[in-house]
Amino acid sequence: MRIELICTGNELLAGKLNTNAAYIGSQLFNIGLELSYVTYVSDRKQDLVGQFNLAFERSKVIIATGGLGPTFDDITAETAAECLALSLYCDEKVLESIKEYFSRKSASKIPKINEKQANIIKGAKVLTNRLGTAPGQMLHFEFKESGKKYRKTLFLLPGPPREMKPMFEENIVPFLKNYSSGIRKNVSLHVFGLSESAVAEAIKPIIEEAKFENSQTVEFGILASDSIIDIKFVVSGVNEFVVDSVIKNLNLRFSDVLKENIFGYNEDTLASIVGKLLIKKRKNVSFAESCTGGKVAAAITDISGSSLYFNSSVVTYSNESKIKVLGVKEKIIKDFGAVSKETAEEMAKGVLNLTGSDYAFSVTGVAGPCGGSKDKPVGLVYVGFADKERTESFKFNFVGTRKDIRERTVNTVLDCLRKKLIEKQSKK
Amino acid sequence: MRIELICTGNELLAGKLNTNAAYIGSQLFNIGLELSYVTYVSDRKQDLVGQFNLAFERSKVIIATGGLGPTFDDITAETAAECLALSLYCDEKVLESIKEYFSRKSASKIPKINEKQANIIKGAKVLTNRLGTAPGQMLHFEFKESGKKYRKTLFLLPGPPREMKPMFEENIVPFLKNYSSGIRKNVSLHVFGLSESAVAEAIKPIIEEAKFENSQTVEFGILASDSIIDIKFVVSGVNEFVVDSVIKNLNLRFSDVLKENIFGYNEDTLASIVGKLLIKKRKNVSFAESCTGGKVAAAITDISGSSLYFNSSVVTYSNESKIKVLGVKEKIIKDFGAVSKETAEEMAKGVLNLTGSDYAFSVTGVAGPCGGSKDKPVGLVYVGFADKERTESFKFNFVGTRKDIRERTVNTVLDCLRKKLIEKQSKK
Repeated sequence: MRIELICTGNELLAGKLNTNAAYIGSQLFNIGLELSYVTYVSDRKQDLVGQFNLAFERSKVIIATGGLGPTFDDITAETAAECLALSLYCDEKVLESIKEYFSRKSASKIPKINEKQANIIKGAKVLTNRLGTAPGQMLHFEFKESGKKYRKTLFLLPGPPREMKPMFEENIVPFLKNYSSGIRKNVSLHVFGLSESAVAEAIKPIIEEAKFENSQTVEFGILASDSIIDIKFVVSGVNEFVVDSVIKNLNLRFSDVLKENIFGYNEDTLASIVGKLLIKKRKNVSFAESCTGGKVAAAITDISGSSLYFNSSVVTYSNESKIKVLGVKEKIIKDFGAVSKETAEEMAKGVLNLTGSDYAFSVTGVAGPCGGSKDKPVGLVYVGFADKERTESFKFNFVGTRKDIRERTVNTVLDCLRKKLIEKQSKK
Repeated sequence: MRIELICTGNELLAGKLNTNAAYIGSQLFNIGLELSYVTYVSDRKQDLVGQFNLAFERSKVIIATGGLGPTFDDITAETAAECLALSLYCDEKVLESIKEYFSRKSASKIPKINEKQANIIKGAKVLTNRLGTAPGQMLHFEFKESGKKYRKTLFLLPGPPREMKPMFEENIVPFLKNYSSGIRKNVSLHVFGLSESAVAEAIKPIIEEAKFENSQTVEFGILASDSIIDIKFVVSGVNEFVVDSVIKNLNLRFSDVLKENIFGYNEDTLASIVGKLLIKKRKNVSFAESCTGGKVAAAITDISGSSLYFNSSVVTYSNESKIKVLGVKEKIIKDFGAVSKETAEEMAKGVLNLTGSDYAFSVTGVAGPCGGSKDKPVGLVYVGFADKERTESFKFNFVGTRKDIRERTVNTVLDCLRKKLIEKQSKK
């Protein structure tokens, strides 16, 4: 069964990212289905008409996101109706609920342009939007081709992920579950500290062998982003127990080869794994950031509940602030430079003293694009560590844009912390 | 002329974002062209074959990104060759340059699996990859349909944006510029502090009128993301002077209606605008962040050169650290709570004293999903401000996920700083 996603709106025009496709793709995978095509189209009438016609022809389920808003460029519902030769009507109940939404926001009356959002395709079921004004629509329709009739389903969903996601979970997931046959589970292993080629070479024998396993289908993929390598695999079969044991066996074999470079599975992130380890060991951590400018602390506090292991952190971007806030000796910066092993270690000690945390990490480097020299090129980064017993530091050379270097550095600091936490664990 | 983009690889499977489409879309716009379709396909052979065949038929220029890597799931070049009934050969020069790449990285020899990357489609021009091992390819080919021959062009580009972008700029932009006819310029205005509906209503008369302007075509779009509303418009015509004057006139009219809610144009971000204003006024700023956990400082330091106006910042996530690092009185937190006007103001004063900066902002709030109460619900945020003369604070109620609330808060703090900077400007 082909499921197709059409993202409309001005994403391309605006050069902005759209997270809906990634979300819907992974949600479908979780119920053993998948998207065959994702297409971004502008909200020009002719492009959208072309795309709807193509999708109605080739796919069984068509999901369109975006273009249900109140503004002049929101034309998804009217265009879909037109392609199916159906009419639109103003749904009184929907209009009422839009009015209610505005009165809750203490607006005296509904803006004229929002009334358009009550236009529903004839025959469609209205999907309530709990978090915005644009309702979704579910339409079963018949598509005729060479004398045959095909029963198909169209979903129209709002573009903002916040509104789209609950609607997708509440309406589309239950509907599509009926179509899912057999068992399919997808697993993702996250690896840090190795290159994509190194991971691919290391796991090649495991993959070759897995392809010959009986009665199960296993598909593999590798994806690299910000120095994190993801190994993805999907196991399909008819017996859940067998599928689970194939997964378990593969995880064990990957783990044999890649060891502690595997930092997590599926939803895990470096920050969430580090958080769990800190809770387990009842330790807290603080950071002194220079070139990452607060991004390490931001990653740590992305995790709800991080207050259990994170109290405070400082961003010391200038030399002056390294001296004033962290107590780094002026002579050290003068003799060795702000980007040096010595400064990194002093910064870590400084923030340990300032915050009284159990562990402290510092980071100082040249993020670029300016500020590099022959001795200290763009991409040179030192990470410092201090606890009550010792101080150490680690040197790295990264390549890429300012953004690349900052993101790789954040992941590297988190991974240094993770290694520190598992190293101590194995000692005790 | 139809230009089509195909993004291959495991983006969907992995549920990850792909920034290539946004980048390519905006690059094309800058030279007066546009993408008709962007399609994401998995790297399963059958899906990719279907997509290439469709694209070769309907588009004049086909750009495919991804799937040129060394691993088993990188099948773009071989699949494209197959669809066009062309063969692949191992290009000795490319193989040599891959070997060189590895020797520069002081690897003793080229990994066996990387040799595959030297496979080039017969007749294609090799596009050098300065930042990785996968070369790009440019292929002119003839497509026959109902007895007619069409001359088309296929580009294969690597997936990692860092490698793709320079290749796109150096090879594809110059090639496609020849196809661009007439003048087309796109402008984007960034608005903060108003809802999408409010912006749409306010600019409706301007848009209605612009559609009737003679000889020029103007297209409009609106896009909302993290409380930032972008008004996009594209002006096409034959005379550059006329196009520019239409743009100038529209910008003036938007500015009349939306006033200082317009914070920037095109590449501007809140952080870059704030940076420029701080440089102009020779002021610096520091932050005391609680619920945003370092994200405000991270946004500020995303800008290269931010050391001119940003020295240091603190993240005080726990009550204890607000007291210890910032000197907030324990009684204030006890009487009013950590999320309160009073604490926000004390935090701002505290970080002003600690860092000696000209301006200080603080932020404390309930980012959720836990930690809310009836009095202090999830989304309640206080922003504090202090300079040598005064202290004040602002209260906000945001809705959405933890991520939404944190991102809106970051934009709100930056916008408070911007307002402060333009307010002072107009006073002097």
